[in-house]
Amino acid sequence: MDQKINHHCAGFLSLIRQKRPLIHHITNMVVANDNANAMLAIGASPVMALSRLEVEEMTAQADALVLNLGTLNPEIVESCLLAGKAANRKGIPIVLDPVGAGATQFRTRSAKKILTEIKISVLRGNAGEIAALLGEADTMRGVDSMPTRLSPSVLARSASQNYGTVVGVTGKIDYISDGSRLFSVRNGHHLMTAVSGTGCMSSSLCGAFATVDTDQVLTSVSALGFLGVCAEIAGKEAVGPGHFHSVLFDVMYNMNTKTLASLLRIEVES
Amino acid sequence: MDQKINHHCAGFLSLIRQKRPLIHHITNMVVANDNANAMLAIGASPVMALSRLEVEEMTAQADALVLNLGTLNPEIVESCLLAGKAANRKGIPIVLDPVGAGATQFRTRSAKKILTEIKISVLRGNAGEIAALLGEADTMRGVDSMPTRLSPSVLARSASQNYGTVVGVTGKIDYISDGSRLFSVRNGHHLMTAVSGTGCMSSSLCGAFATVDTDQVLTSVSALGFLGVCAEIAGKEAVGPGHFHSVLFDVMYNMNTKTLASLLRIEVES
Amino acid sequence: MDQKINHHCAGFLSLIRQKRPLIHHITNMVVANDNANAMLAIGASPVMALSRLEVEEMTAQADALVLNLGTLNPEIVESCLLAGKAANRKGIPIVLDPVGAGATQFRTRSAKKILTEIKISVLRGNAGEIAALLGEADTMRGVDSMPTRLSPSVLARSASQNYGTVVGVTGKIDYISDGSRLFSVRNGHHLMTAVSGTGCMSSSLCGAFATVDTDQVLTSVSALGFLGVCAEIAGKEAVGPGHFHSVLFDVMYNMNTKTLASLLRIEVES
Repeated sequence: MDQKINHHCAGFLSLIRQKRPLIHHITNMVVANDNANAMLAIGASPVMALSRLEVEEMTAQADALVLNLGTLNPEIVESCLLAGKAANRKGIPIVLDPVGAGATQFRTRSAKKILTEIKISVLRGNAGEIAALLGEADTMRGVDSMPTRLSPSVLARSASQNYGTVVGVTGKIDYISDGSRLFSVRNGHHLMTAVSGTGCMSSSLCGAFATVDTDQVLTSVSALGFLGVCAEIAGKEAVGPGHFHSVLFDVMYNMNTKTLASLLRIEVES
Repeated sequence: MDQKINHHCAGFLSLIRQKRPLIHHITNMVVANDNANAMLAIGASPVMALSRLEVEEMTAQADALVLNLGTLNPEIVESCLLAGKAANRKGIPIVLDPVGAGATQFRTRSAKKILTEIKISVLRGNAGEIAALLGEADTMRGVDSMPTRLSPSVLARSASQNYGTVVGVTGKIDYISDGSRLFSVRNGHHLMTAVSGTGCMSSSLCGAFATVDTDQVLTSVSALGFLGVCAEIAGKEAVGPGHFHSVLFDVMYNMNTKTLASLLRIEVES
Repeated sequence: MDQKINHHCAGFLSLIRQKRPLIHHITNMVVANDNANAMLAIGASPVMALSRLEVEEMTAQADALVLNLGTLNPEIVESCLLAGKAANRKGIPIVLDPVGAGATQFRTRSAKKILTEIKISVLRGNAGEIAALLGEADTMRGVDSMPTRLSPSVLARSASQNYGTVVGVTGKIDYISDGSRLFSVRNGHHLMTAVSGTGCMSSSLCGAFATVDTDQVLTSVSALGFLGVCAEIAGKEAVGPGHFHSVLFDVMYNMNTKTLASLLRIEVES
């Protein structure tokens, strides 16, 4: 492990707490509350607005935009496009979480449309979702990833080159690439898969971290590592997913950069 | 109590954990997160998709479909019908939770429409909701049951005969019938009524349990008994509804079939 | 502090538990679950219905109506107007939470439209939201209040006179006015700002408390004081916002009027 990267990445947390960035979410009804609480736990400020009548105006105030397709419909896709264009005009980072891409044509098509019409900064998904966006078939079962033809690290790099965005492929090991560089994050805890919306939470965190540095590979690595480290600590304490879910916010809130730097397991893969 | 039934019912939990069934939910915004976490806690996999553009495709991947009318609108009713028809074509079980049927004409009418056009496997509601679907008046106040003319056990059997589906009427004692057989479940804890969505959660559990056996009376009995047993354990530990809400997921996650079998209070009523 | 007011205000909690009022919410997807659980924790009964096809019928059964614009769209605004008119016809109290008024024109315009067309009993917001409704510019950043030209106490009184409704301006100190009288509540805990939806919860509580007395200034003072006192107790116990969020419901559920009366910090400002 490269201690210099760990310290650099951990430092982003302090910058977020100083900046208190406003993160506009267009997100799904299953995890909206968790998304908001994750933002507050790290010192960012969440706002959720969905209607096409206001998303551009709300985005114009924000420091980052998070688009999450978990319970999408045509109106939400339209709002994502409007907000995305406003974010592009303002030059703030956009994170896309293509929840369930590959599970239905509507999801795959909507995610691709957003990736085509909007300049996305970070695309964060599981292996099946990212593989589906690269044209692989049968990669998803609901919102769960199935085995993919390409490995997660290859998926991250390929999708990054294909869509011209930083890509984070999360799973047991997370891989993050900007098309040339490739990083891995080996933090995490198995209880993350027993609580709904930890993936969505990681996308929100990518949005908040993206506001404090222009190197969106490193901010995404840091966001995913941060969640993984917090999950490890919460997981040691928790007797089950209910307790874990609750403690996770406490750990995020109380995390300091020194502890974070010492526990991050980031590797430069290439 | 019949130890053979208890062991049989408890065994369904192991089957769910082996199968990891995908449960497609069209559910309400109040309890969507809890529904998802209940599924994950027992080893099932939730997916929430609402748009008519994708519900048929999502249902085609699922092992069961749960329709919950808690925050319905005409688009959601349309999606329920589309998903329900897809589930019927595939032959997977469908659970209907007619939240608030009887409270408004729109809810009563929508629930009846779904019951008429779709072959529902399990109808799960409180006494007031089921009574309203049998034509009794003034059975509901919001989403809470008021005293009904017919007793819960009679409601379960009558609604089952009327709609040709297994019916679970939940309350202090739960009654489950397929029109001929009638079972009761005497598990539960008073804190269940102090947390929103425990009824909705019981419907989700009925959906997951329905995927592991064709006898939908016994799978529903087991699902309701499972939740009641977990609530009893969580309720002993909890100092209030916030703590109870959190611990309930831990208990569901850590429950084993032996403990479950020993604590189930299932009776064959007739 | 005026012990007579404290005892009077604390007594409302007992009345709620006796009455078990039905509180119809048209609320946002971020906090719907918390809103519902707050109602159950104090012994009230929540119902959430959003569709214009049923809100009038649902409101006709309710003891109070809470309108929360957190994730509004034109359909929800229409439902708020329909439900509001039904509540006015029935003569039950209505609480309006103008979440994010001032952040977008759609929010400001919608809140004003509701205030104009409906007789609102209690308007509860942060300083920036209330200032925006009085025509101040640049008072909001997302759903967070920015510094306002007028002080919170002046905002409460001015907005009350302007809109002919009780106004609660919440913040470090809460101010509540009916245009002539002005009260302050100095209860609360800093972790309230680290959990999403505590403001929304305070509006729900204002709705429940409004059902047990016609003096809506005092019921609102009591509701805000109750939440603040519970937050103080939960905050002492909690190690972070996850734990705090959970414990808050326990404390609300277990609160008794004697403890509440002894901890309320209500002042008659004028």
